[in-house]
Amino acid sequence: MTAHRIYNFNAGPAALPLSVLETIQAEFLDFQGSGMSVTEISHRSKWFDAVIEDAIARTRRLLGLSDQYEVLFLQGGASMQFAMIPMNFLGDGDTADYVNTGTWATKAIKEARIQGKTVTEAATSEDRGFAYIPKDIAFTPGAVYAHITSNNTIKGTQWDAFPETGGVPLVADMSSDIMSRPLPVDKFGMIYAGAQKNIGPAGVCMVILRKDLLERTPSSLPTMLRYTTFAEKNSMYNTPPCFAIYTIQLVLKWLEETIGGLEKMAAVNQAKGDKLYSLLDGSDFYQGTADADSRSLMNVTFRLPSEDLEKQFVADALAAGFGGLKGHRSVGGCRASIYNATGMDAIEALMDFMREFERKMG
Amino acid sequence: MTAHRIYNFNAGPAALPLSVLETIQAEFLDFQGSGMSVTEISHRSKWFDAVIEDAIARTRRLLGLSDQYEVLFLQGGASMQFAMIPMNFLGDGDTADYVNTGTWATKAIKEARIQGKTVTEAATSEDRGFAYIPKDIAFTPGAVYAHITSNNTIKGTQWDAFPETGGVPLVADMSSDIMSRPLPVDKFGMIYAGAQKNIGPAGVCMVILRKDLLERTPSSLPTMLRYTTFAEKNSMYNTPPCFAIYTIQLVLKWLEETIGGLEKMAAVNQAKGDKLYSLLDGSDFYQGTADADSRSLMNVTFRLPSEDLEKQFVADALAAGFGGLKGHRSVGGCRASIYNATGMDAIEALMDFMREFERKMG
Repeated sequence: MTAHRIYNFNAGPAALPLSVLETIQAEFLDFQGSGMSVTEISHRSKWFDAVIEDAIARTRRLLGLSDQYEVLFLQGGASMQFAMIPMNFLGDGDTADYVNTGTWATKAIKEARIQGKTVTEAATSEDRGFAYIPKDIAFTPGAVYAHITSNNTIKGTQWDAFPETGGVPLVADMSSDIMSRPLPVDKFGMIYAGAQKNIGPAGVCMVILRKDLLERTPSSLPTMLRYTTFAEKNSMYNTPPCFAIYTIQLVLKWLEETIGGLEKMAAVNQAKGDKLYSLLDGSDFYQGTADADSRSLMNVTFRLPSEDLEKQFVADALAAGFGGLKGHRSVGGCRASIYNATGMDAIEALMDFMREFERKMG
Repeated sequence: MTAHRIYNFNAGPAALPLSVLETIQAEFLDFQGSGMSVTEISHRSKWFDAVIEDAIARTRRLLGLSDQYEVLFLQGGASMQFAMIPMNFLGDGDTADYVNTGTWATKAIKEARIQGKTVTEAATSEDRGFAYIPKDIAFTPGAVYAHITSNNTIKGTQWDAFPETGGVPLVADMSSDIMSRPLPVDKFGMIYAGAQKNIGPAGVCMVILRKDLLERTPSSLPTMLRYTTFAEKNSMYNTPPCFAIYTIQLVLKWLEETIGGLEKMAAVNQAKGDKLYSLLDGSDFYQGTADADSRSLMNVTFRLPSEDLEKQFVADALAAGFGGLKGHRSVGGCRASIYNATGMDAIEALMDFMREFERKMG
């Protein structure tokens, strides 16, 4: 029997590749002949060791990471990283730059300042409701790091090229676009991503960290708040979120073996975005909210002529089998999140629905 | 086709009820008619809302919690709680007591002291390798809390009755025996438990917290390190570990509806422990390591006459379909972890194997 499945445009937790879900389901009572569920095996077993090592190796291959980078798995989501980054990297007299592109960047700045750390808002797009990515940014020479949010799920903006910082390492929250495209990794001191949009379920945060930054971590921090703890123990100082890491491993396998790597994934994502934005651009009924040069290929945000129409659009879409199209509660409107696992078939089906809705209601 | 399943005596992650695993498997591609996997639904959806509310309601019913307690779900395991407890509850001039019953309690003390907090080791059983639970404990009048570890997975010890503290609230790490028996909850200011032994998969920590303690949390802490954040946002300030909470919900449903509550669960656990310990007591070949009055009903630790025999025992047992019998790497020996989901059938099968091994090798 084929399971009932909708087109899932959730912002996160979000769609996962169906083949990954089917693998999890098929081996859920007996993981790899162990006679146990993946939720029942020890994190110190040969079975889980193979899972986490494969997840790390695939991350290294997909992003082309050198040995200078650690690949770690932490809990608490990107929100915990907002606190841990300044806690680990900023000592007395140190400063860091933050580019404020909206909600998540604003929270990252707040969590640094609550600790009394000195951070500079190097640029902000608040003047126009965060509808764009700032271009002219005055990075501070000698800053320990420069923090950016590579994609804003709420406003539907995304960094296309990454900024020149004059040698200051970028620290990037890539929760909503990690593994959606190749990266110039050498520019980054740290990349972190809550898994629940592009690479897995909620409950694990991938952290890619340049090893020299580990030297900044004070040994006076609680053990679970030090990056060194995770680096020294291969993310297993205590029991890691095994099921979430296992799902990441399967998603990365799908990226490598089914999609064919990040160049190919990026091409698919570009084609998906181009199609959907072309519908917005050709319509007076649907209006995109982000500046054209700052548009996200992950979250396509748009408005309809009235809030009533938006409500009806979301409701009619759900009835027609398209889920998750409501905009974030803080901004309203509509949003189609089209992460890696959302295929072109879903985009085309949605566009048919949107054209039909416009014809009927426009 | 019936899945290949072994008898799972893992210390954690550990066995889960087969019926729970089967439910997860059956609805993994289409959760409750949503057309999405439980890993793909939004944490702000009606579907997940029903999951977390049911998990909380069942926790309240099973433990008989009054409205004075919050039921929260955090990430980072019990190890993160070791840091958060003193961080949230101990201000300048405050002190807390800790009873040191081995590895986990020792770590909890260390995480308080690394923050410069004043904590007292009110008692310790280190003199005899933590083989017992201390009896005479000098609790400090006026301490903010008294911390205990209700069950020690490594040494196989467990608090039977809970100590009189003279009104100081107990804070208990119950990672390895939560929901294994009814509790005198009024004695506790806080109960916390990494889920991966008795109630779910790795990746979530249940925190039961008396509301008046929330008043102690300083607002100067980073948001994700404040208990108030989780209490105010029903554990959803940011995306929670949805799959792990969902599994907990199903395990609690099994406890209520299949087992019939904690009185019944405790009776089953007592019968399982009595049987297995009676084998140890009647044997010169197998020697229990914990004092008789401090024995754990969750982790039965024992030695064989030699390390070579222990190695062979673990290997032969695995070949015969009994997994996880190796003792913790820090102490060696053997250990059968017999949490809630390990049934009497598994105990009896293991005992048959142990008698046969003794007959052959003893």
